[in-house]
Amino acid sequence: MAVALQAPTRLPPVPGIRLSTCAAGIRYRGRDDLLLIDAGQDAAIAALFTTNAFCAAPVQVAREHLAAGAPRWLLINAGNANAGTGPAGVAAARATCAAAGRVCDADPHAVLPFSTGVIGEPLPVSLVEDALPCLYAGLRDDAWLAAGRAIMTTDTVLKGATRTVRLAAGTITLTGIAKGSGMIHPDMATMLAFIGTDARIDSALLRELLLDAVDRSFNAVTVDGDTSTNDALVCMASGASGVDLAAPADRERFLVALDSLCLELAEAIVRDGEGATKFVRVIVRGGRDRSEARRVAETVALSPLVKTALFASDPNWGRILAAVGRAGIETFLIERVRVTVNGVEIVSAGGRAPDYTEAAGQRAFAAAELDIVIDLARGDAEYTKYTCDFSYDYVRINADYRS
Amino acid sequence: MAVALQAPTRLPPVPGIRLSTCAAGIRYRGRDDLLLIDAGQDAAIAALFTTNAFCAAPVQVAREHLAAGAPRWLLINAGNANAGTGPAGVAAARATCAAAGRVCDADPHAVLPFSTGVIGEPLPVSLVEDALPCLYAGLRDDAWLAAGRAIMTTDTVLKGATRTVRLAAGTITLTGIAKGSGMIHPDMATMLAFIGTDARIDSALLRELLLDAVDRSFNAVTVDGDTSTNDALVCMASGASGVDLAAPADRERFLVALDSLCLELAEAIVRDGEGATKFVRVIVRGGRDRSEARRVAETVALSPLVKTALFASDPNWGRILAAVGRAGIETFLIERVRVTVNGVEIVSAGGRAPDYTEAAGQRAFAAAELDIVIDLARGDAEYTKYTCDFSYDYVRINADYRS
Repeated sequence: MAVALQAPTRLPPVPGIRLSTCAAGIRYRGRDDLLLIDAGQDAAIAALFTTNAFCAAPVQVAREHLAAGAPRWLLINAGNANAGTGPAGVAAARATCAAAGRVCDADPHAVLPFSTGVIGEPLPVSLVEDALPCLYAGLRDDAWLAAGRAIMTTDTVLKGATRTVRLAAGTITLTGIAKGSGMIHPDMATMLAFIGTDARIDSALLRELLLDAVDRSFNAVTVDGDTSTNDALVCMASGASGVDLAAPADRERFLVALDSLCLELAEAIVRDGEGATKFVRVIVRGGRDRSEARRVAETVALSPLVKTALFASDPNWGRILAAVGRAGIETFLIERVRVTVNGVEIVSAGGRAPDYTEAAGQRAFAAAELDIVIDLARGDAEYTKYTCDFSYDYVRINADYRS
Repeated sequence: MAVALQAPTRLPPVPGIRLSTCAAGIRYRGRDDLLLIDAGQDAAIAALFTTNAFCAAPVQVAREHLAAGAPRWLLINAGNANAGTGPAGVAAARATCAAAGRVCDADPHAVLPFSTGVIGEPLPVSLVEDALPCLYAGLRDDAWLAAGRAIMTTDTVLKGATRTVRLAAGTITLTGIAKGSGMIHPDMATMLAFIGTDARIDSALLRELLLDAVDRSFNAVTVDGDTSTNDALVCMASGASGVDLAAPADRERFLVALDSLCLELAEAIVRDGEGATKFVRVIVRGGRDRSEARRVAETVALSPLVKTALFASDPNWGRILAAVGRAGIETFLIERVRVTVNGVEIVSAGGRAPDYTEAAGQRAFAAAELDIVIDLARGDAEYTKYTCDFSYDYVRINADYRS
């Protein structure tokens, strides 16, 4: 059950970028599970991958291909993660790129492979090979919704977002899709996101802008603290609009749009978090620096005790303070901490706020969306972490998954 | 439901140490909830407390009193943590020490206060005061079982252990009790442990030996990664046996006994972990140093995905490898990792072991006690972390607790 999350009904095309999906039968029956994206001949592509040392074969191959040259094609399958598959898995990922290269008349290094699904099972390469001609033939620019659907695994809602940005030289479009319901479930693993734009941007700048945006969005969400073997975020700039970002003001406008698009997609992943019944922003203010604000926000957002209290709509402020207290901040005075939840002051001076009533707390915690604001009163730094609660369903989904 | 844990039926007295319990009615009805311990006139006492910056009033006062001089008396209540209670809470803890001082004819600084229970509610000092004369009158040396029972909160099984150690100058006894069911539940908060011995040890040496033992026991267990506001571990040496630890071999024998006593109590806490259905040792070998072995063991032991798979008896080795992979070890080659579970080789060379079968994995994971051995193949360092699984009941207990 996703928290206040609706699938988009329309995702506008991005000039220069074409997509195609089909049902290859890799794991699912009766639905598309393979996606091919053509970012265009002059595309710039920036990609960020999981930092997990146990990374999947397609991540290794995509990194290699990205470093080797001029990527243009993306090949994504759902249902099999091709992770924990050793050298055979790497060979399988390479084989799918070679096959795509033959069909698309491209160097295999121009193809980036992505997989999401069950860990430890061999990728059925022939099913991908068989599907490629039909996939190639179906490429069109208005297939973003179908693309978003084809990469879903345990997601309950299709995730997509779009932005239009007016720049000095003209208007450009940003459209993106994402999948993931939890930052990881290493079975139906993975957070994947693909964003396209028709702006003209070189790949170095694109990477810089993407790194900036991801820090406040995809890197700021957590469901359970686990990170995946297959996580990847790709931004493609086709250049088809001919509109560039030479002017600093245009660059800024583009970044604002990319930022908010990334945040919308990242929030969607949390709202559809496994078993989530609440969407929660943990907003830490008054840190000495951003890193300590982040440490506190993460400790609170990951605490199983805070998350089970959120599930119960229980205004259990002691658990929040206990999590703040163990975040490992030097020379920390809990006596200065103030906490509000949806505007209700719950903690002041490190204890129950004088005007706080249990009834007011219960009303605040009953909401489906919560802003927990924690003021450390040590400085000006802020950090916001996005998370969800911890429910019976999280345990059910992750305990039952493979059976 | 505790995992293979039985309450002790007998806990032998420790000469020189007397205990007394009574029903003060602080929160519970019809059971003892207050404990007074007299460690003896010449006692040495060493105590370790939570490192959480949000520490409870009794922890602050006990630290102060311990630093101030010659502690002899311990006053412990269950049902109210006296945490998050601000200056009034500190005054309340001091008031109970003053009252105990009057009744026991002692300086208030000789009394160390401990509380466990609900956070954020004022401690009813008068109930403690009223109970003290009767408590004092009831002091006797064979009350360890009653003492263990009086400090329980959400524990389902009384926890106690004992050792007899033959030293050069004679035989000494170690007896201890503990409470806690989860390293924390900040409501019925707290891990508390009290260990007594009649050996003659000065407090500096006692502290040194305790720090050593705790590192391999209480600091090596985790239920959910949260740490409490009230955690405390106290070791009292009455000296009543007249047997000292002057000989290095005697010191070693004592440490071995203290070590195994601490581990038995710490394991008992995990076996009685909230909602636990499995008791799990995560044994990491082949680390370059102990700190990286520890980091890997902790990451695996705390992963909600590993813990839900353990609950489901699901041989989901991908989750174990993914947790190893995100432990943040430098220049790490997942391709060398080997994992066995209860002797069954599941992962070799970073992938599914060649002879592994799902049936063998399922048999291994079906056991109530699991040894997960992870060999990093980087060096000789080892670390063992003790944990439990993550079940529906963990969520139920922590979501429903206050209601």
